Amino acid sequence: MPYIEFPEPEVGVLRRRPLIIEGLRNRVGMDVLIVDEDGRRAYETDAFTAYSCMPMLVVLPRTTEEVSKILKYCHENDVKVIPRGAGTSLCGGALPSEDAVVLCISKMNRVLEIDFANRFARVEAGITNLEITARVAVQGFFYAPDPSSQLACTLAGNLAMNSGGAHCLKYGVTTHNVLAVKMVLMDGTIVEIGGTTLDRGGYDLLSFVIGSEGQLGVITEATVKIIRSAEAARPMLIGFRSPEAAGSCVAAIIAAGIIPVAIEYMDRAATEVCEAFAGAGYPLDAEALLIVEVEGSENEIGVLLGRIAEIAARFDPKTVSISSNAEQSARIWAGRKAAFGAIGRISDYLCMDGVIPLSQLPHALTRISQICAEHGLRVANIFHAGDGNLHPLVLYDANSPDEADRAEIAGAAILRLCVELGGCLTGEHGVGIEKRELMATQFTATDLDVQMRIKSVFDPGWRLNPAKVFPLDASESLRAGLAARAPEAA
Amino acid sequence: MPYIEFPEPEVGVLRRRPLIIEGLRNRVGMDVLIVDEDGRRAYETDAFTAYSCMPMLVVLPRTTEEVSKILKYCHENDVKVIPRGAGTSLCGGALPSEDAVVLCISKMNRVLEIDFANRFARVEAGITNLEITARVAVQGFFYAPDPSSQLACTLAGNLAMNSGGAHCLKYGVTTHNVLAVKMVLMDGTIVEIGGTTLDRGGYDLLSFVIGSEGQLGVITEATVKIIRSAEAARPMLIGFRSPEAAGSCVAAIIAAGIIPVAIEYMDRAATEVCEAFAGAGYPLDAEALLIVEVEGSENEIGVLLGRIAEIAARFDPKTVSISSNAEQSARIWAGRKAAFGAIGRISDYLCMDGVIPLSQLPHALTRISQICAEHGLRVANIFHAGDGNLHPLVLYDANSPDEADRAEIAGAAILRLCVELGGCLTGEHGVGIEKRELMATQFTATDLDVQMRIKSVFDPGWRLNPAKVFPLDASESLRAGLAARAPEAA
Repeated sequence: MPYIEFPEPEVGVLRRRPLIIEGLRNRVGMDVLIVDEDGRRAYETDAFTAYSCMPMLVVLPRTTEEVSKILKYCHENDVKVIPRGAGTSLCGGALPSEDAVVLCISKMNRVLEIDFANRFARVEAGITNLEITARVAVQGFFYAPDPSSQLACTLAGNLAMNSGGAHCLKYGVTTHNVLAVKMVLMDGTIVEIGGTTLDRGGYDLLSFVIGSEGQLGVITEATVKIIRSAEAARPMLIGFRSPEAAGSCVAAIIAAGIIPVAIEYMDRAATEVCEAFAGAGYPLDAEALLIVEVEGSENEIGVLLGRIAEIAARFDPKTVSISSNAEQSARIWAGRKAAFGAIGRISDYLCMDGVIPLSQLPHALTRISQICAEHGLRVANIFHAGDGNLHPLVLYDANSPDEADRAEIAGAAILRLCVELGGCLTGEHGVGIEKRELMATQFTATDLDVQMRIKSVFDPGWRLNPAKVFPLDASESLRAGLAARAPEAA
Repeated sequence: MPYIEFPEPEVGVLRRRPLIIEGLRNRVGMDVLIVDEDGRRAYETDAFTAYSCMPMLVVLPRTTEEVSKILKYCHENDVKVIPRGAGTSLCGGALPSEDAVVLCISKMNRVLEIDFANRFARVEAGITNLEITARVAVQGFFYAPDPSSQLACTLAGNLAMNSGGAHCLKYGVTTHNVLAVKMVLMDGTIVEIGGTTLDRGGYDLLSFVIGSEGQLGVITEATVKIIRSAEAARPMLIGFRSPEAAGSCVAAIIAAGIIPVAIEYMDRAATEVCEAFAGAGYPLDAEALLIVEVEGSENEIGVLLGRIAEIAARFDPKTVSISSNAEQSARIWAGRKAAFGAIGRISDYLCMDGVIPLSQLPHALTRISQICAEHGLRVANIFHAGDGNLHPLVLYDANSPDEADRAEIAGAAILRLCVELGGCLTGEHGVGIEKRELMATQFTATDLDVQMRIKSVFDPGWRLNPAKVFPLDASESLRAGLAARAPEAA
């Protein structure tokens, strides 16, 4: 693959491996460590499967105090640390390096407190996303962000990437649903950020830490909002003759002031694959399919779906069908949620994650098809259309290095297009290692400089999830500059 | 007043005043400067009227470029800068110092772009809060945060303090309603932060800058969300026999999963004063009054108000009355919005701004009354009850230095109580100079240290709005430490 360069591993650290194992064993005990190669192999890669690397060591702490001891040791002994949840990152956010310890939080998965009156749940960060909802559903509550990987992905990963999901159009992404975190800084200090009440004074470190991709600290606990579930929810399917018609319809729904819970877009390629996989009842003759879901009382749902159907009629749809029962609704969502897996059965793919202004949707869809065709590749489009968050899946054959290269080049071109159209590089998957070098297309040198200086405040040695998020040259020259400069300017 | 200490002005800077005037005149022209004492007097204080100080100079730039030139000059010549909007801060956030230039953004008040399809407005930061809504209302949109001072206060001030308002229960505070800002750093660099689309990758600097009280840069432009107004909205009044009953009712409404647009609380003292001022139709025989507003279609409003009335009935209310027409609704809100002014006609007061967990509301109200009684003072309680944001008004006579001291001590005790109950020091007014020393009751030394180090990244010389937000000793010792330490640790 052409544009991702890996820094050379630090030979000195590799040589010290036996000492590091010994040092960590003395602090947290052998049962927290995975030393052998077979055990470590499970942590070689994440869901950005194009790259992999065997880590030096894996640790699976069970308490915040153990996380603190591990980080303190690594800080004092100059060892890099890669924080990891379930490893479902699509951008290489949890990709290890040879000279690093992978710190996997998945054993810390308990619910610590549920407070229905004040509407929050306090949990350990290794809990899976769906488990939070499972634990509060009995009282009619849920945790809103719902990434497609929610059965597997951890809250820790959601916090690192500020994850979204199909239903975030109404309820916001992770940052809008988290009240507080407990975080361990690289030097081992344990801090608590945020609280269960409104704005607290001082700077808003919480929003800042959420989405910082594991580079500022390791989050071990979080207090999340739980929301009362609506009385009912119902999706409708609208099939269109062209991507332009579907895009214009989405823009018209939003411009009318309607905020559905979700508006999902699938093109013909994606629809066919998902229908074959899930039997969801999707129309196979449409060039573009929208799944629009609204919620509220049965009465409200009827009114809203009726208004949406009226708006859709202006764009000459091929089919408009409203789910008539819970079983049908579940199948419609099962098809969408399984989309990435279903497409993965027929082809390797790169899942891109760009965002565009809603009004640019029709134009963006046309250009994405052109870009992929220019590189001799097919694309399946499937995304959160309501908030302009695109997930074009660039299909390729992983056994052909040439096709893999072209997929990566086309993917980067799609993301550059998003930025050109006034959008941005990532909606919910994060930057990771995949989009590191593209950050310079979106941010000025000053923007990046400010962000990297703040990274240096939290982690002066840049040991936490290194070589990610920032262009490699920029971060290396900043660090060289900081080391050489007078303290005041740092 | 006992606890707010002012640093000595820098004599060297005061002596250089003629040079500084000359330097700024050469860069931005004389008509941007206010030099004479009469002109500067208008900027001596803000709405935290207990303190005042004549600034060295006032500048009223008209463009971002002028702001950049002014900051660059001050950065290079070691002059402190106090950013200011309309000066409506209730915590001394815009309080000048003798050796500082006040940079007032109020002349930059244009609307630059309105995009109804993508639902945002781009404005200069000196625009008043209400003017934004005025400009988009014709198309059925509004800007959500609505501080009581919205007729006068600027968006710049709202951004600095992360302001809220009565209707923020449903729509969130400033940080939830802003998409992007243009900001000038202390060294004159102009940066753009955020964008009109979802999450952008990199660290979330936007949330971080919002609420940073003018200490990280001067915001000159902002892109704000505009929201489609609901079909209709209607308030109801519920009068209770005790603060405990009102507090329990608020908790019960929220626990039932209903999110009204606003739940405002007024105690008997506040109700009497507001009713005398505005003739709003408030019941005068209730110990505690709730104004609860819901919105939606006429049908939804009826259902929701009915459910709320049912819940209220469990707490033995004295009166329950639903507004029957628009004129009545307007008078109900006029009384609430005029509350601070109406109380100001009968007494001096300190308006506190603490937050508590909802479930603690009844207990907090009892303790606040006790605290004020212990200091021989009266209190009027009027606040955003739905999100636990308290505004106890501690009444005192400004002509009695002893009473003023006692008011300040009682106010600080109330805020400490909020922190003890699991809440925080400020909901929407900010820390400013008023709550600077109290920050140490809410944040650990590590928390404050991280925040102050980030301040140093943006403004290494601590020239922007100095001596605010952080305890004075802590910020001085951090700066001394940074100057002495090796670069890596900085």
